[in-house]
Amino acid sequence: MKDGVISERVFESPKAKEPVLVCGLPGSGYVGKLAADHLVSSFKLRKVAEYTSSSFPPQVSVKEDGTVDPPKGEMYFAQTKGGRSIFVFTADAQPTTSEGEYELSDAVVKFAKKCGVRKVYTLAAYITGSFSNSPKVYGAATSKELAESLSEKGVTMMKDGGISGMNGLLIGVAALRGLEGACLLGETSGYVVDAGASKAVLELLSSVVGVPIDTSKLKEKAEETQKVISQLQAMADQSRETAPQPGREQRPGYIG
Amino acid sequence: MKDGVISERVFESPKAKEPVLVCGLPGSGYVGKLAADHLVSSFKLRKVAEYTSSSFPPQVSVKEDGTVDPPKGEMYFAQTKGGRSIFVFTADAQPTTSEGEYELSDAVVKFAKKCGVRKVYTLAAYITGSFSNSPKVYGAATSKELAESLSEKGVTMMKDGGISGMNGLLIGVAALRGLEGACLLGETSGYVVDAGASKAVLELLSSVVGVPIDTSKLKEKAEETQKVISQLQAMADQSRETAPQPGREQRPGYIG
Amino acid sequence: MKDGVISERVFESPKAKEPVLVCGLPGSGYVGKLAADHLVSSFKLRKVAEYTSSSFPPQVSVKEDGTVDPPKGEMYFAQTKGGRSIFVFTADAQPTTSEGEYELSDAVVKFAKKCGVRKVYTLAAYITGSFSNSPKVYGAATSKELAESLSEKGVTMMKDGGISGMNGLLIGVAALRGLEGACLLGETSGYVVDAGASKAVLELLSSVVGVPIDTSKLKEKAEETQKVISQLQAMADQSRETAPQPGREQRPGYIG
Amino acid sequence: MKDGVISERVFESPKAKEPVLVCGLPGSGYVGKLAADHLVSSFKLRKVAEYTSSSFPPQVSVKEDGTVDPPKGEMYFAQTKGGRSIFVFTADAQPTTSEGEYELSDAVVKFAKKCGVRKVYTLAAYITGSFSNSPKVYGAATSKELAESLSEKGVTMMKDGGISGMNGLLIGVAALRGLEGACLLGETSGYVVDAGASKAVLELLSSVVGVPIDTSKLKEKAEETQKVISQLQAMADQSRETAPQPGREQRPGYIG
Repeated sequence: MKDGVISERVFESPKAKEPVLVCGLPGSGYVGKLAADHLVSSFKLRKVAEYTSSSFPPQVSVKEDGTVDPPKGEMYFAQTKGGRSIFVFTADAQPTTSEGEYELSDAVVKFAKKCGVRKVYTLAAYITGSFSNSPKVYGAATSKELAESLSEKGVTMMKDGGISGMNGLLIGVAALRGLEGACLLGETSGYVVDAGASKAVLELLSSVVGVPIDTSKLKEKAEETQKVISQLQAMADQSRETAPQPGREQRPGYIG
Repeated sequence: MKDGVISERVFESPKAKEPVLVCGLPGSGYVGKLAADHLVSSFKLRKVAEYTSSSFPPQVSVKEDGTVDPPKGEMYFAQTKGGRSIFVFTADAQPTTSEGEYELSDAVVKFAKKCGVRKVYTLAAYITGSFSNSPKVYGAATSKELAESLSEKGVTMMKDGGISGMNGLLIGVAALRGLEGACLLGETSGYVVDAGASKAVLELLSSVVGVPIDTSKLKEKAEETQKVISQLQAMADQSRETAPQPGREQRPGYIG
Repeated sequence: MKDGVISERVFESPKAKEPVLVCGLPGSGYVGKLAADHLVSSFKLRKVAEYTSSSFPPQVSVKEDGTVDPPKGEMYFAQTKGGRSIFVFTADAQPTTSEGEYELSDAVVKFAKKCGVRKVYTLAAYITGSFSNSPKVYGAATSKELAESLSEKGVTMMKDGGISGMNGLLIGVAALRGLEGACLLGETSGYVVDAGASKAVLELLSSVVGVPIDTSKLKEKAEETQKVISQLQAMADQSRETAPQPGREQRPGYIG
Repeated sequence: MKDGVISERVFESPKAKEPVLVCGLPGSGYVGKLAADHLVSSFKLRKVAEYTSSSFPPQVSVKEDGTVDPPKGEMYFAQTKGGRSIFVFTADAQPTTSEGEYELSDAVVKFAKKCGVRKVYTLAAYITGSFSNSPKVYGAATSKELAESLSEKGVTMMKDGGISGMNGLLIGVAALRGLEGACLLGETSGYVVDAGASKAVLELLSSVVGVPIDTSKLKEKAEETQKVISQLQAMADQSRETAPQPGREQRPGYIG
């Protein structure tokens, strides 16, 4: 870690023809994070840069083997079999301040631009509060042309509202730096880590960027999630019978 | 976007004789923002500078055509038909920190001063919590002389209290930089986007700066608002009859 | 206002023999602020420096004549009739962040040190929650010697707890910069602007620094306050009779 | 205090063979702070560096003799009788912002690294919400090897969750700077200042770093705490009999 608010360690600056950057950060339902992690493992991407920031939450997370990790952002890269080059950016957490989110977004976009990236896709969650068996994918883009091409691929374009946090800001900053960007948002209840929404988002991404993505592992996870949802619903039905609690809050469990 | 907390892109630095700067930012009832947007569209102002800041909310907003915009501040300019030059500053959001509000205010005032501006007017809302058919316009100014001249034009001068956020700070910073400033606040309930208050504020501004302003479009919007208010009042009356809820909070709806 | 977080405008850097710095900022009961304002007006002090800071609340306050002021800090100076030189620092508000409080404290202490000040006194409130006719004065100091000399003058030295905000921090920073400092805290209910507590604090300050201070105007204010307190108590008694509300919160009214 | 956010005053930069750094900062149950203070007094460590930061809480604390101290961090050093060199870092408070925690952690780790430290241990609390007579010690480490060696010494390695604040961040930053680190967390209810948990943590630390630590004074404190716990439990039993309050919050009392 260098002195200063944000620090970037670059291991490699891959130059490739028409690479895309795909970003997925932790958020509601872990939709974007799960999807990004899936891309990293299924394409066997290699880490090319790492980011630490003093605006990440001041904590370490503990892994199963008792080891700890400070929050960091990671940029991965690989050429896919089809010849298309892909960068993936993900992080353990989102920065805790506006300033931190802008700085990290800017560092990521600048690195990508230097490597020839012209289009930035972010993957996020579209919270509905209810469960869906066939989650829709919503979208928004930095240009009318990109919005129309997404719409043709089956993305339901948003018409108002906003996209908060890094998953929205990254495409906003991309536009400010002269790149194009789009956000794909998987419909999700917001109550559980939703691999089904991640799968839906990746399938559309695959069609949009022209890279085949194997989502079978996410399908397995989604089926596990589905079981938990069924149990939650059964419990909810039961509790509704015995004691109605209209205003009750349900804390999402992490079952990814 | 340059590196750093705030970034200013200047497209043009118009030099004009005795120009005024009018500012309206989002706030309660959207009174100032609506008024500023109305000036921009009715005078066909051209954008002369743009501001991004890492203290704006970290998000993008989605427009009707599915495209997104990161929050930014915009400075517009035109010579009116009467010969008077007018700058208008508006923004998609207010900065999220004290430091961000001071920095943006200072950047705006410095730009205006460089272009010859000597007087800064901000347009804001004066929240009363109840609906009014003929909203008053309240005011405060950086000098006694300006306060008196506003009073002669029919502005009800405030006698205590404070003006929070950019709409207040901009005239405070104007004074620190040697300019004069005044804030015109349109009486509003705070429950709805209030085009009627915006109209009242612009009519007084027109008289104060000696520039005719056509407010017919705001009148239409105000009439729509009036309908919604009537409905809200009818609903409130009804709910009061069926079930009195003294502490109930009413979330303002955006009906602009 | 210069660019940057804090800005200092120095009109004059008076050099004097053994001057003291007395600071009083807004806080509970306005005890310190009232006392500082009283010193400024009764000694006819002249302003020698002014501070603006982007960590002050982003707002302007409106005065009786409809004019506005952005929050600022002010340093005053005069030689008293007895020959002792006195600096007084006060501000319209306290900064809104830790960083802002440290920066302003540091700027004030550095200026004072440059002018020869060796001792810094801050005036504050000691909240008890109940009304007292003869408020005590509590104290704390940066050295054991100063603590003992205050104790001899009738100050009740604190034995634990803490002093939050600028009134505490200023003497902490004074110590870090090699000066001595003490805080005098007037006993107050915390419910009203308490001129009686301000008067008590100034009388002890007068004895400690060897400067006669005329507190007759504060006495008048204190008597007005006393009337309001009697009314509040009467109302409280009455409401207690009709409907006991043990957890009821009483918002302090500004009656200064 | 120098200008700037953080300031480091170094009195001495001891060079020693294989020194370790032990850190304990205020947190739940004061477990780490008590343990660090115990090391400072029982090993008669000397202060070698001092840190002030504008992200510490803006306040001074008052001691028994009426003197005040601004919050600061302190680095101590000594060679133990067994020949092992030990640094101890502690502070009066934790910084109030993410940025402040990162900066202070980084300053501490950089100083330690310069003095030859390769391993950083932090002492913290593991909150369970219930009282235990023989508190366990939990742990997490920056490498698998260190995690395994702690496990062999009797530390129960954490398998998930996170460690918030300086006690977690310090080992995260240590890892980023190429050092090893581990956090030892004493099981505690979180309701009282828990010298028993501090004692348990120090006994394990003693075994891990191979330095004998006399914990008899902590044992006395722990016994006092035990008495208070018994009283609390008796009171809790009684109140449970008279009026069950399942959701009741118990504010921890400081009985250290």
